[in-house]
Amino acid sequence: MSSPQQRRFFKLIHLEEALRLMHEAVQNRPIECENVETVRSLGRVLAENIVSEVDLPNHDYAAMDGYAVRASSVKEASQSNPVRLTVTGELHPPDHPTNRSIADHEAVYVACGAPIPKRADAVLRVEHADKENEEIIVKTPLEQGRNICHIGEDLKRNELVLAKNRLLRPQDIGLLVALNRKYVNVTRRPRVAILSVGDELIEPFKDSQNKTINDHAYIVSSLVEYFGGEPVLIAIARDNVEDISRKITSAMEKADLVITIAGCSVGVRDYVPDAIRILGEPGIVFHGVALSAGKVSGFAVAGSKLIVMLPGHVGSTVAGFYLLVTPLMNMLQGLGFKDSLPTLKCVLDETVRAKRLVDLLLPVKVFRSGAEYHAMPLTKPLSVLKNLVDANGYVIVPANSVLTKGASVDVKLYGALEFHSLAG
Amino acid sequence: MSSPQQRRFFKLIHLEEALRLMHEAVQNRPIECENVETVRSLGRVLAENIVSEVDLPNHDYAAMDGYAVRASSVKEASQSNPVRLTVTGELHPPDHPTNRSIADHEAVYVACGAPIPKRADAVLRVEHADKENEEIIVKTPLEQGRNICHIGEDLKRNELVLAKNRLLRPQDIGLLVALNRKYVNVTRRPRVAILSVGDELIEPFKDSQNKTINDHAYIVSSLVEYFGGEPVLIAIARDNVEDISRKITSAMEKADLVITIAGCSVGVRDYVPDAIRILGEPGIVFHGVALSAGKVSGFAVAGSKLIVMLPGHVGSTVAGFYLLVTPLMNMLQGLGFKDSLPTLKCVLDETVRAKRLVDLLLPVKVFRSGAEYHAMPLTKPLSVLKNLVDANGYVIVPANSVLTKGASVDVKLYGALEFHSLAG
Repeated sequence: MSSPQQRRFFKLIHLEEALRLMHEAVQNRPIECENVETVRSLGRVLAENIVSEVDLPNHDYAAMDGYAVRASSVKEASQSNPVRLTVTGELHPPDHPTNRSIADHEAVYVACGAPIPKRADAVLRVEHADKENEEIIVKTPLEQGRNICHIGEDLKRNELVLAKNRLLRPQDIGLLVALNRKYVNVTRRPRVAILSVGDELIEPFKDSQNKTINDHAYIVSSLVEYFGGEPVLIAIARDNVEDISRKITSAMEKADLVITIAGCSVGVRDYVPDAIRILGEPGIVFHGVALSAGKVSGFAVAGSKLIVMLPGHVGSTVAGFYLLVTPLMNMLQGLGFKDSLPTLKCVLDETVRAKRLVDLLLPVKVFRSGAEYHAMPLTKPLSVLKNLVDANGYVIVPANSVLTKGASVDVKLYGALEFHSLAG
Repeated sequence: MSSPQQRRFFKLIHLEEALRLMHEAVQNRPIECENVETVRSLGRVLAENIVSEVDLPNHDYAAMDGYAVRASSVKEASQSNPVRLTVTGELHPPDHPTNRSIADHEAVYVACGAPIPKRADAVLRVEHADKENEEIIVKTPLEQGRNICHIGEDLKRNELVLAKNRLLRPQDIGLLVALNRKYVNVTRRPRVAILSVGDELIEPFKDSQNKTINDHAYIVSSLVEYFGGEPVLIAIARDNVEDISRKITSAMEKADLVITIAGCSVGVRDYVPDAIRILGEPGIVFHGVALSAGKVSGFAVAGSKLIVMLPGHVGSTVAGFYLLVTPLMNMLQGLGFKDSLPTLKCVLDETVRAKRLVDLLLPVKVFRSGAEYHAMPLTKPLSVLKNLVDANGYVIVPANSVLTKGASVDVKLYGALEFHSLAG
């Protein structure tokens, strides 16, 4: 009774199962690394353990502008018993290393960062010293070590200071610079090829009369960039097995991961799965996920390369990217098989329900209202790009369930740029 | 009674007052713009309103693989009363525009994306049609419009689709591409010059014997990059008014905003304020903020250029950057005078108290524990870079107050990269 035009049926698997199969397929892959200049490593993933070869700081220095003294000289100092110390000189940061020394009842002016003279063991802040000619008058005692930065206080020689698989942030770069590390070993950015499929498609910025502009490829390439990858755009494939398989083959030569867009549903000219099947073992790992957006998504492995099939309706393309591609990209970068999206607790602003058998991936508009974040469901059809433009995150509504208005829900934000619209 | 070596006193102003003065100084500045390629505009700030010149889609099309029919032909269809329709052909996406038409009791196979034949007003999904030879058997009625994407459903001609001052995300880029916009007008990235001051400093990646590596400049330049600016590194200035003022002048020629690091405290060789004073009107707007980290920070305006003085202890340098520089950088980019940092509600893991007169800016380590985020205070001295490396955000504890262990506090995360360590 099946239509000859329905070229395949879908055995839908749950998202968790899909993710498990993907994780299994990538978990033992070696992660490729490269040396980059430290000062260009922001946002990259560290591929080595960084152990300090030095003590930082490498000498004691004054943490404040003030006077280096012996704490014992001022231990009896009080308002009623001011202690006078003779100022015998001054030290500045470039005076390190110094041979200067102080005796009891002597002080040396030390600028913030200056080395500490021998026998001094505390620094009196300049604001707390009254100066008269060559003396200072001290009216409070000072504990030993006060206002001194000690050798090794920041980093100790042989200390593990940054562990492998950490994302490098500005302060981490500062630490590497402080350790004089000009280059740092990081994981290579995953190269992700993007292949749109369809006879009706045309590249943008041309006369598009009666054609459909291939905008999806540019959304996906921007998403790849957004999540730390290097996008590689492949020319549009036409609706035949030969062209698609040839272009996937070419894409696999250029990239670690190939994303196909459209051509993987039940239509008579949906040839992507056929094209993948002739590329070799192990082939299609799954095709069909029990999701309201992205149901015809799939995943394949051909040789050492990974292929994710994303559907052509933009809502499903983007959903498939977030759910299936971001954990893969993170894995390839050494960040583990997870999406790492910001999650916010929000008050749901409208009741939503998922169908019996498929989880609903629901785009939402998050906004701040007083101290709370609210999430407004955006329920336009999956073909409507404006729905995603209005959204800044999504909620997953489990199959056969209802989330009622006012409920607290976990929203995955689309990414960090969304915080600009949420800031107070 | 003041020490001759204390070259200035600080009249501390509150952070809110400092921010108000800065906002006032920049609020009427024109924001500079530039045209960039749309496909390279991720994360940039839109400087024009985008109005659609077309309807999108520009024709009705099938939203599913299926059969285009007249709803009226199947309105009586049911399990007990199956309706047979004659399939008279097929349409695919590139067949747009089509002259094909259907009569009552006829159907045309339409692939997802195909144009709709004349007189058809609904699409029956292929999974819901039993095909026998040249007929399909329909057992349920179908409402008009079902599974059809209508002209203008995504965007209507003359609709405002993206408003000025919006940060461009992947889907926004897709929309611009769909509108065939090859270039887009965005605000120019702010150029931020970074000038470290100190006789003891040496540039990194050299023999640093007895010198202090100028790592702070690279932390700040990475922060500038992190927050959407273009860093411009200036050679280290030495501790004299002439060198500092000459280098600030040179920095002002290259940048919109100059950040000085160190040399602005109460030491005898802290010459940055003196150097700024000779650069012209209006000069120093404030110098001294009632903060535990960054107390000697300041802000100046010289001609059309902005100068932020940051202190030299790294904890204070970074604190000053987050509090004072990020709102300025956002303002210069058209995002308004705010920091736009991600804010998370966290459970405080240790009691902390602020001194009587200064707000405490406290670095914290946020981590997830079950459904909650926790914030562990990191209280090492401001000179300790490792303290910032271990932190991923900060809490402001208002002057003269105590936040007790277990309290719910608002943590400002250092930025979006922090979510990688927080993801489950």
